[in-house]
Amino acid sequence: MLMQSSAIFATKPASAPLGVKAVYRTSSGDSNSMAATVRGPKWAQKTITLPPHRRGCHLVTSQILKEIRPDLSEFKCGLAHLFLHHTSASLTINENYDSDVRDDTETFLNKIVPEGRSAPWKHTLEGPDDMPAHIKSSMFGCSLTIPITDGRLNMGTWQGIWLCEHRDAPTARKVVVTLNGI
Amino acid sequence: MLMQSSAIFATKPASAPLGVKAVYRTSSGDSNSMAATVRGPKWAQKTITLPPHRRGCHLVTSQILKEIRPDLSEFKCGLAHLFLHHTSASLTINENYDSDVRDDTETFLNKIVPEGRSAPWKHTLEGPDDMPAHIKSSMFGCSLTIPITDGRLNMGTWQGIWLCEHRDAPTARKVVVTLNGI
Amino acid sequence: MLMQSSAIFATKPASAPLGVKAVYRTSSGDSNSMAATVRGPKWAQKTITLPPHRRGCHLVTSQILKEIRPDLSEFKCGLAHLFLHHTSASLTINENYDSDVRDDTETFLNKIVPEGRSAPWKHTLEGPDDMPAHIKSSMFGCSLTIPITDGRLNMGTWQGIWLCEHRDAPTARKVVVTLNGI
Repeated sequence: MLMQSSAIFATKPASAPLGVKAVYRTSSGDSNSMAATVRGPKWAQKTITLPPHRRGCHLVTSQILKEIRPDLSEFKCGLAHLFLHHTSASLTINENYDSDVRDDTETFLNKIVPEGRSAPWKHTLEGPDDMPAHIKSSMFGCSLTIPITDGRLNMGTWQGIWLCEHRDAPTARKVVVTLNGI
Repeated sequence: MLMQSSAIFATKPASAPLGVKAVYRTSSGDSNSMAATVRGPKWAQKTITLPPHRRGCHLVTSQILKEIRPDLSEFKCGLAHLFLHHTSASLTINENYDSDVRDDTETFLNKIVPEGRSAPWKHTLEGPDDMPAHIKSSMFGCSLTIPITDGRLNMGTWQGIWLCEHRDAPTARKVVVTLNGI
Repeated sequence: MLMQSSAIFATKPASAPLGVKAVYRTSSGDSNSMAATVRGPKWAQKTITLPPHRRGCHLVTSQILKEIRPDLSEFKCGLAHLFLHHTSASLTINENYDSDVRDDTETFLNKIVPEGRSAPWKHTLEGPDDMPAHIKSSMFGCSLTIPITDGRLNMGTWQGIWLCEHRDAPTARKVVVTLNGI
């Protein structure tokens, strides 16, 4: 995403340990206003494509980081926003270690959203899995906002980014990533 | 929202195709630091009122755009944040075409959240539909964050903004819209 | 979070009533470009720790405000982002008055997510409450974004921030708070 590879931050604020207690103010043409400033805030935006995944919940943290890491590393403090362009899949944050957790979550979704002959749906033209997919998409949501600290996604030890594919037929999924920070 | 109608962006970054791969840096008093800069980031905030909608899921994309489009058009890249001021309705993003999808989603919500005599709720003073409404509001959530690209909400082809009214009595609903970008 | 206690905003935009209709543009070294400008945007980020709460839904608005109020008060317009570092608890916005609403919500969550012998989960090594906790965390989500207006969280009259603890054993929970605005 970045056009230049040069460093962006002029100086670091003389702050407490980053990620714990820090404030950043950007300079705005008045060089006397602060002892420590960073250059103006940056925005970066990129549409990435996740390859087709089978129906179920999938850990995609590393796939997403592979696409955005160079840009992410330029942000001292900020927010990363991920927005899935679809209404039959979802993005959520959950456990990043045991794949059984993903399987059990898929089991849960299928248990509470009826599908097939027993289901009361009017919207059936796109297949029996389509209406359940829409419902699951609103339950988990199609976007995530994650803090950035020192060039990295500031998530908990056990947190990962999941793509939940709710359709039977795997298809590529687009995610608009917007990074904002300093 | 905007006080002036003059253009805000000084020059475009000489970037790759927008929305796909782009980075923006704001000038910060140092005119030599970049070949292409945009003026400082903007924030716009406005409280809009959605008219009363009957219980169920409603597509409100055009109602919201009508209120924010002039402001939105001033942002090259950014994020739009919508925040519903209520705990018995919700905002979600889902299918924008077939109204059956909205009806089926309402059917689902009523199916999994018990209401009336069979329901185990202690909170019943505000009517049998009130406690279910609170639960549905947390299931779908009361806020959305959507990327802005080239002056438009950057959503997928089939995505729309839904207001889900969970109370029986339709009431006007307030949404705080915050736009941030460059 | 703030290193200095001095005022940050140079001048107020000569805008319509704040929170209703307002636009803010930051100065960017060009003092002639606007009649009214504010200094550059600020970012503040802090990790706060919520003390252990018993399983269930808890109103934590005041606990969170106690930690961030001094910093919040420095923002005229912006967004507050809260990000829980855990996958077995959740953050949601809901009713702030009647504790029965929190109790009923906990009742609902336990009703739709099976636990114990009747549950179909494969992931059971961390206890019978662990897999249900993961599912509930994705249902309600682990992050919130709330508008800031005039130094305060701009929520509705009846809205509050809930921490939902989904594990039996209470533990302290970390929340990364990121404030961004002007």
